[in-house]
Amino acid sequence: MNTIENKIMDEKFKILLADSVNEEITTICDILQETYDVVVDSDMSVDVLKDNKFQIIIAHEVGNAEAGIDFLKKTLELSPESVRVLITDCSDSALLIRAINEAKIYRYIKSPYSPTELKLVLKSIKEYLLLKKENDKLLLDLKKLFTGTVSAITDALDGKNPYIFGKSRRVAFCAIKLAEYIGLSDEEVGKIDIAGLLHDIGMVGIPEKVLNKAGILSPEEKMITKQHVENGIKILEDIKQLKDILEIIKYHHEQYDGNGYPFGLKGEEIPIASRIIAVADAYDGLISNRSYRKGFSHEDAIKKLKERAGTGLDPKLVDAFVKVMDKSLDEFRAFEEELTKL
Amino acid sequence: MNTIENKIMDEKFKILLADSVNEEITTICDILQETYDVVVDSDMSVDVLKDNKFQIIIAHEVGNAEAGIDFLKKTLELSPESVRVLITDCSDSALLIRAINEAKIYRYIKSPYSPTELKLVLKSIKEYLLLKKENDKLLLDLKKLFTGTVSAITDALDGKNPYIFGKSRRVAFCAIKLAEYIGLSDEEVGKIDIAGLLHDIGMVGIPEKVLNKAGILSPEEKMITKQHVENGIKILEDIKQLKDILEIIKYHHEQYDGNGYPFGLKGEEIPIASRIIAVADAYDGLISNRSYRKGFSHEDAIKKLKERAGTGLDPKLVDAFVKVMDKSLDEFRAFEEELTKL
Repeated sequence: MNTIENKIMDEKFKILLADSVNEEITTICDILQETYDVVVDSDMSVDVLKDNKFQIIIAHEVGNAEAGIDFLKKTLELSPESVRVLITDCSDSALLIRAINEAKIYRYIKSPYSPTELKLVLKSIKEYLLLKKENDKLLLDLKKLFTGTVSAITDALDGKNPYIFGKSRRVAFCAIKLAEYIGLSDEEVGKIDIAGLLHDIGMVGIPEKVLNKAGILSPEEKMITKQHVENGIKILEDIKQLKDILEIIKYHHEQYDGNGYPFGLKGEEIPIASRIIAVADAYDGLISNRSYRKGFSHEDAIKKLKERAGTGLDPKLVDAFVKVMDKSLDEFRAFEEELTKL
Repeated sequence: MNTIENKIMDEKFKILLADSVNEEITTICDILQETYDVVVDSDMSVDVLKDNKFQIIIAHEVGNAEAGIDFLKKTLELSPESVRVLITDCSDSALLIRAINEAKIYRYIKSPYSPTELKLVLKSIKEYLLLKKENDKLLLDLKKLFTGTVSAITDALDGKNPYIFGKSRRVAFCAIKLAEYIGLSDEEVGKIDIAGLLHDIGMVGIPEKVLNKAGILSPEEKMITKQHVENGIKILEDIKQLKDILEIIKYHHEQYDGNGYPFGLKGEEIPIASRIIAVADAYDGLISNRSYRKGFSHEDAIKKLKERAGTGLDPKLVDAFVKVMDKSLDEFRAFEEELTKL
């Protein structure tokens, strides 16, 4: 509680205060202005919400609870995140139930009330809002820490092979773009991001002499590299929070026509997220240098991808990928450039 | 908000309801019992708090606000985490200020009030409590995800060298024990845990033929392995949330007498967390098999550690480590056993 107590002192929240009669408004303003940034909406037009964000919206309606409830209801659409407070002398329970259910009020203060009471209610609302904010920040911070660390480690692993440095990040980048383009949810896109970073983690088990071989791999060496999928599964399978990510990584070398490995799944049996990673991975493989050839240009890589549509890759996703890379090529080039600086 | 709304439905919170006069208590109980698990404390003894946890404590004192405030104040010590509510007809601001400052009430309900009002206040308290709980759970979950993933990847890296499998986890285990024993804070111990897991991450840059060499390394090969500290710094230095962890890893091969690498720091110039990792790392090196010798027994390893006290290692920490391993050896053996099953 202590850290929150301190933040309550520091942060100046914005309050929108409405009253159609403007009765007592000056008194309330005086009380609140010590701690809050207060804007008065005397015509109750909600227009001010179009250009301003308020954490707290108060309707003060003595003698006219209905007007207050209607006003708070109107604010819902423009400012759903705000906390709504109704101050009124009314205790008609039908009206109060409307205020709760329709105007989604968070707190009701019965008039007459003391300044201390008003301050206490607002302090507790602030505590609630700060907790919510802290929740969001925590999530974001820890997500950054997680992806940052995973990126750093996979970069280091990618660096073991002179031909794949930055691969995990590039694949994640392209897979995210494709996933967003076809309209997957933010949550799905987030999973694809991490799966993109971790899809080749199993390469850590492949001997360097195979990873770094100058020249085309022998059939036996190819068999060895294929084990990276099963290695990856072994590495990550005990982490229960990565279950969804593991499901994506498991199938990233399955092929649309069923000729992939290790399970030989076909078409839509392969999870869509894995099919997305497969397209991004294939593109990255094409544009990257190899010991036996220089990387293809973007145009040639796209041509080659199209040739694989329907055999190795999901044709609809190849289609979408061509479109999305058309729009995102400059951004991708800038991202690649950034990676070379690492 | 929606997920919280759902949780409000699911979770039955416990309320302690106190009233010295027992006036209206039945009515309030009836209202609350639909949604909450209510216990009535009619003698206001706070004894019930010794064996039970309540999320919410309500003092209902019409005509005797003072008694309610005193009761709530008494609950502070036994149940600081509870949210305190005062229901009273009093609006004497001196008393209310006492209630806020001394009894740390979270909400005040003025009697008479409607059932709808009481329910609304309790619903918002529940929302606040659930947010707090979610915050804690989030932190724990993400911490588990982070350490789980880092452990899994470092296990895989450790597995590249037949002589160090499980090393990162064992070093983290021993370092935590030592850090706890000397009384470092939970926060510091948490950092040492992650630093223990990541201290050798830079090994990813060392060629396999050096890592896996059967036999003692040549001076040149030793030089190459020493680069793992600088490699580790490079891998992690851009992750701002790992700044503190990096500071620990940086100095884990410094020696107490100044003969370590890469900076040649001496004695207490070396951060205590790095000196702790150094002791745990040295112990692990001694008990592990090498291509040129079998691992030492615990007793012999401790003897060898003591020989290094004051030269390579901090003598006070070696002392503490000997004591802590005396107590924790069985637990360590069980942990080692678990690792071999991976």
